[in-house]
Amino acid sequence: MLYVIGLGLSDETDITVKGLEAVKNSERVYLEAYTSILTVGKEKLETYYGKEVVIADREMVESDSDSILANADQIDVSFLVVGDPYGATTHTDLVIRARELNIPVKVIHNASIMNAVGACGLQLYNFGQTISIVFFTETWRPDSFYDRIKENHQFGLHTLCLLDIKVKEQSIENMARGRLIYEPPRYMTVNQAVEQLLEIEETRNEGICKPDSLAIGCARIGTDTQKIVAGTLEELVDVDFGGPLHSLVLVGSRMHEMEAEFVKEYAFNAETFNTIVKRDYVH
Amino acid sequence: MLYVIGLGLSDETDITVKGLEAVKNSERVYLEAYTSILTVGKEKLETYYGKEVVIADREMVESDSDSILANADQIDVSFLVVGDPYGATTHTDLVIRARELNIPVKVIHNASIMNAVGACGLQLYNFGQTISIVFFTETWRPDSFYDRIKENHQFGLHTLCLLDIKVKEQSIENMARGRLIYEPPRYMTVNQAVEQLLEIEETRNEGICKPDSLAIGCARIGTDTQKIVAGTLEELVDVDFGGPLHSLVLVGSRMHEMEAEFVKEYAFNAETFNTIVKRDYVH
Repeated sequence: MLYVIGLGLSDETDITVKGLEAVKNSERVYLEAYTSILTVGKEKLETYYGKEVVIADREMVESDSDSILANADQIDVSFLVVGDPYGATTHTDLVIRARELNIPVKVIHNASIMNAVGACGLQLYNFGQTISIVFFTETWRPDSFYDRIKENHQFGLHTLCLLDIKVKEQSIENMARGRLIYEPPRYMTVNQAVEQLLEIEETRNEGICKPDSLAIGCARIGTDTQKIVAGTLEELVDVDFGGPLHSLVLVGSRMHEMEAEFVKEYAFNAETFNTIVKRDYVH
Repeated sequence: MLYVIGLGLSDETDITVKGLEAVKNSERVYLEAYTSILTVGKEKLETYYGKEVVIADREMVESDSDSILANADQIDVSFLVVGDPYGATTHTDLVIRARELNIPVKVIHNASIMNAVGACGLQLYNFGQTISIVFFTETWRPDSFYDRIKENHQFGLHTLCLLDIKVKEQSIENMARGRLIYEPPRYMTVNQAVEQLLEIEETRNEGICKPDSLAIGCARIGTDTQKIVAGTLEELVDVDFGGPLHSLVLVGSRMHEMEAEFVKEYAFNAETFNTIVKRDYVH
């Protein structure tokens, strides 16, 4: 059996009792470590589970999934995913591959940012499609997600923006010289995401992510150090949200009064927040 | 401390280790029992936790929340929610009330249908807003959610439809006579939801939920008896999905090839499915 087990969002104790049981009964345990992170590392998990945990990087999962699945028709193998198993496309691939090999698969669900973002005070059913914002480079400044935000915006829906994570990156020099030296991991901050959005708005100028548009910056949702700040994009540029992971919610104009009431608690500046809510949002 | 703890989707072992710890340390434990259900009842939970669990019905949570919150500034109280705490508006109210009373609140997240629906093979980021379908009555046949589906449809996004649950209902006769006798709980099936959608389509006739539109019926997601069937609305009318809870996904035209590949495994009729996918969906 292949168990695909969500670990939730914070530390080793966010696994479900059912998930922990499966891990303990598995002969091999893999940890997918490139789409998200917990607040604890592999060593902590190994101590907690009482067994070895193999880090599965993107290359392993995407190009060498058969090594993960080896013998899984006869023994139990656990594949651990931060958040919920169906948060990222890449895990779906693994399930499809297991099916092709006639390996039974059991998914053990858990919280992901896709539902835990409700912590920001906005109702989940008022969110439109979710988008991902990737790091701009000198030469590559993709803005296609702006069209997705615009679609949500048109119907007054909120947008959850997942922020880029770069692990196991090589510098161009190291890559050219074939040196397997990796750069330190990079996690996009709310500030970086907001800066990129404002830059795109300046170019596109369609009034979707204006300096005075309301948004909610979320850091380490579901952990003890969770930080949530609501404000205009301009205000959020300089807020220190601390360590990763961050995500950003763009507030849709269909916000209810009750949502505004909850979010207000997180306002960077309650007065500005109320004024803008009354002017552009709750009707 | 008020702990608001998600129980996940299936049985008593879907609670997180962190959540179980909090329950065990709590002096009072409430179970919200009107927005969703587990596959196990209150007695099973009481045995598992080794303590009494008080059923909190809608009236208690909405009109008598202060009894739940009593002393929670000094002792630990757990409020258990099937799925994730932020799945329903009503739990947000409780958190707001606790804040007003200066009671510290800690939310322990878990899977909800809002993310576990990824099990159907469609990617979560391709979903638009979520809607709720309520039971039609003789005299009340609300169809405002049709406009929400239409908005998602316009951009090719999938729609998760949450299906109605009726617990502690009184018959009109019993209500009139003031008898506190309740009808058995009712859980909307995929079949009923599809019938209602087709009826609305017949009236509105905007081509949003046609008999040959693709949808995915989901029953008991996250449990061992999970059942997922993909097909046209017409096909799904007669599929037996078994016991509650059911939900329904309307497939958006922006479906990727990889999503279709995964969903195909659940097709009621693989041939029809492929033909319609090629004609109306993946491009």
